[in-house]
Amino acid sequence: MEQNETARYVDLNVDVGEGFGPYRVADDEALLDAVSSANVACGFHAGDPSIMRRTVEACLARGVAIGAHPGLPDLPGFGRRELDATASEIEDCVLYQIGALEAFVRAAGGRLAHVKPHGALYHMASRRRDLAEAVASAVRALGPGLAVVGPAGSELLLAAEAAGLRPVPEGFADRAYLADGSLAPRRLAGSVLASPDEALEQTLSLLRAGEVRALDGGTARVTARTVCLHGDTPGAAAFALALRRGLEAHGYEIRPLSTGA
Amino acid sequence: MEQNETARYVDLNVDVGEGFGPYRVADDEALLDAVSSANVACGFHAGDPSIMRRTVEACLARGVAIGAHPGLPDLPGFGRRELDATASEIEDCVLYQIGALEAFVRAAGGRLAHVKPHGALYHMASRRRDLAEAVASAVRALGPGLAVVGPAGSELLLAAEAAGLRPVPEGFADRAYLADGSLAPRRLAGSVLASPDEALEQTLSLLRAGEVRALDGGTARVTARTVCLHGDTPGAAAFALALRRGLEAHGYEIRPLSTGA
Amino acid sequence: MEQNETARYVDLNVDVGEGFGPYRVADDEALLDAVSSANVACGFHAGDPSIMRRTVEACLARGVAIGAHPGLPDLPGFGRRELDATASEIEDCVLYQIGALEAFVRAAGGRLAHVKPHGALYHMASRRRDLAEAVASAVRALGPGLAVVGPAGSELLLAAEAAGLRPVPEGFADRAYLADGSLAPRRLAGSVLASPDEALEQTLSLLRAGEVRALDGGTARVTARTVCLHGDTPGAAAFALALRRGLEAHGYEIRPLSTGA
Amino acid sequence: MEQNETARYVDLNVDVGEGFGPYRVADDEALLDAVSSANVACGFHAGDPSIMRRTVEACLARGVAIGAHPGLPDLPGFGRRELDATASEIEDCVLYQIGALEAFVRAAGGRLAHVKPHGALYHMASRRRDLAEAVASAVRALGPGLAVVGPAGSELLLAAEAAGLRPVPEGFADRAYLADGSLAPRRLAGSVLASPDEALEQTLSLLRAGEVRALDGGTARVTARTVCLHGDTPGAAAFALALRRGLEAHGYEIRPLSTGA
Repeated sequence: MEQNETARYVDLNVDVGEGFGPYRVADDEALLDAVSSANVACGFHAGDPSIMRRTVEACLARGVAIGAHPGLPDLPGFGRRELDATASEIEDCVLYQIGALEAFVRAAGGRLAHVKPHGALYHMASRRRDLAEAVASAVRALGPGLAVVGPAGSELLLAAEAAGLRPVPEGFADRAYLADGSLAPRRLAGSVLASPDEALEQTLSLLRAGEVRALDGGTARVTARTVCLHGDTPGAAAFALALRRGLEAHGYEIRPLSTGA
Repeated sequence: MEQNETARYVDLNVDVGEGFGPYRVADDEALLDAVSSANVACGFHAGDPSIMRRTVEACLARGVAIGAHPGLPDLPGFGRRELDATASEIEDCVLYQIGALEAFVRAAGGRLAHVKPHGALYHMASRRRDLAEAVASAVRALGPGLAVVGPAGSELLLAAEAAGLRPVPEGFADRAYLADGSLAPRRLAGSVLASPDEALEQTLSLLRAGEVRALDGGTARVTARTVCLHGDTPGAAAFALALRRGLEAHGYEIRPLSTGA
Repeated sequence: MEQNETARYVDLNVDVGEGFGPYRVADDEALLDAVSSANVACGFHAGDPSIMRRTVEACLARGVAIGAHPGLPDLPGFGRRELDATASEIEDCVLYQIGALEAFVRAAGGRLAHVKPHGALYHMASRRRDLAEAVASAVRALGPGLAVVGPAGSELLLAAEAAGLRPVPEGFADRAYLADGSLAPRRLAGSVLASPDEALEQTLSLLRAGEVRALDGGTARVTARTVCLHGDTPGAAAFALALRRGLEAHGYEIRPLSTGA
Repeated sequence: MEQNETARYVDLNVDVGEGFGPYRVADDEALLDAVSSANVACGFHAGDPSIMRRTVEACLARGVAIGAHPGLPDLPGFGRRELDATASEIEDCVLYQIGALEAFVRAAGGRLAHVKPHGALYHMASRRRDLAEAVASAVRALGPGLAVVGPAGSELLLAAEAAGLRPVPEGFADRAYLADGSLAPRRLAGSVLASPDEALEQTLSLLRAGEVRALDGGTARVTARTVCLHGDTPGAAAFALALRRGLEAHGYEIRPLSTGA
């Protein structure tokens, strides 16, 4: 039985604009051909003003919904290292980054759709209420109608909801889960789904049944209204396109959150 | 004869929020008690998200108009060193910074009033048409109603006008001019006016006659609708307050640009 | 009874060169007149190449021993926020910073004497063996004869000793201790000793008896061969000079570690 | 007739370690298999402590001579944008970077062999005597025996010689020259030699006759004791290896400068 019988559409999201200066980590243009939502780096963990402008333009040219992807202020660590910043510092850093990105979106005639924290900030704000509230407060200050993307049941989504924002639970197409619903750590064999077929199977299971096979046995409950794909691996764009085609072949329409996914 | 007979008010502006992390360069709170407009650093030459939030709040608490003060990406050089960036890079850097600051202004319930480039960017955009147009383009993209502050007759103000923005010529209360209308270089004796009385005399001359005594003899034509004070010298706040009191004693009302100065 | 009967000298150390670009946090020149050892910031939490050069020159002009004061890569947080970097990243960051500082010391005709980690890195390396070993490994790689400064009994000093370096336990003149030997957190009333007299009394007790009065009652055992003063408070230089004079009046000679303190 | 009849060896140099954090621009390991000298980025325009350590180890494992490749403090611009820094600031920045790199070289048991400025700093120090002297002064302060690599006849090499350092003129294998001896700007068709055969021909002509065919007609005089290859293009490592094999087939031995090239 379908979980969302009347709503057979899904949002696919990917992180983009995560280069810096002369550096690039992904084929953003190709990735953007496969997804419906983009999380655009805002300059603290990756991204710079010129990359942000070009990335925003590439999203708008394809009708891909644009979200801010704020990170911790840690360029050499790519925002992946936890930093013991205060909730107030986090709130200010997030507001700064969202504001900067939104300027490019407005300049290009678009509208910011959502916010998804990056890396260590995503994990910290999922786990700690004070940081979740800091992120939610920054998002609400800039845009009361914005969606916030995070793990189902996380402090981040609870805080977003409490702030009157739209909480959007996220699942992962290409990462294995443990039975407790958490992502399997990358050091475990099988933690990354290597083939589009596996990713498609997991995504369909997640969408239809709200559960996926767990790497440590049994099943994991995973609620998701948007599905994340990783873009920084070789072949990521082809992987993403194959997943999209597979979902469409199973009757799903790929649509941004803002249009009702 | 008065240059602005029917409009005996003037805007005083000062750069604020130019600390970084644990560092401060001025007593911003005291300075903000003396002026009507503030140019808030945006994180590239100085400033950081938490300083920006507090500075914006301090401005709003005093009814001081808030402007963005974007600089070149050069923290160790405080944005004072010219950098051979392209016009496109400059446009993107300015848009990023204005957007970030505007987020704090909106979050605090205010409205961004103007943009004044900082340091080397101020000079480069005053002199080079391509950079002036880059700055104007970034400002217009974010806020068609914004004022742009720069030297009278500069490329910056010409580009602002051509972009449909409001060009606001700026004079300096505490810096001597040369006969050609340029600021006297700091290495010249007498280039910085040391007493509030001298600054008041120059400001009054500038407002009444559109000219000031030149350091190298004769007079300099200086058109100004806003008058800049430097905040990073010892005693700057007292200096600013003395100038304000002096202007008020001569019948001038100190008002932000946005209210008609 | 004196702890060090035959050796009535002590090293006083202070952090210097902790400005950045146009910013300064302390009157380094005056502080350097009062101490025998300086911990020079190396550009990651504070400091920049030009400040480092001038600070090194100011130390050498006074015969003050020069130590490296490496910090976490966190300028806006002044290196005070813990960062979840790997031991390998820490080792590389420390080696980079020590090497950079040593270049200025050699260029000025001096010799690097010691290394004392800054802020969060000091605390992390005192507590965690892997990070302590990372710091010690970096120091040993650059200079087998260097001293390492840290809390008595800390992982940092144990690792320094194991690496064949010279471990130097440090006490604080102007910070209160708890009975367990740890520093009283700054939020506690009385955690900072406000008068040079109190600091002198604590320092004498620490030197003579190896113990100090604890803020939470009783006494704390504190072993120290070097005594740290904070330089970033108003009046810090006068405070330092008063402490020095007091120690000298009680028969102590203020000497760098490298000469046997 | 051969220019260096008795010395049929040549040094090939390439820039390496020019990634940052998670980013890479070249296949450094493969490039290092083809050259005899490496210019290692030092963290200001590219590179970070962990990349520097690994790059140094990769050089030593292959017997490739290690040089410092200091750049302007401009990560987003990759050190390619001229910055109006003072000679004193440049000297301090260069000394800082050389010192940092040398720490990794010493830690790994090697010896720093040369210094070659990067990008805009290379061009500025080749052209301006004050900056050339600043670079030479920094190099001499750290290592009186170091070689300095730059264009033949440049201010940089003149200053290096005057400072008692070893000036090493550099030619380019894969870039076309103009008749005045300067490099053809990249915007000109034919400015980059696309095939290893062309590069080999130019390199042999440069080594044998001290001249190369000029893109704008006639020949250009080019003196070179080391030949630079670019590593940041697709296929760069294969190109480098083909050039090396070609030079060897023509009887040249590829040797680091320090061994007499």
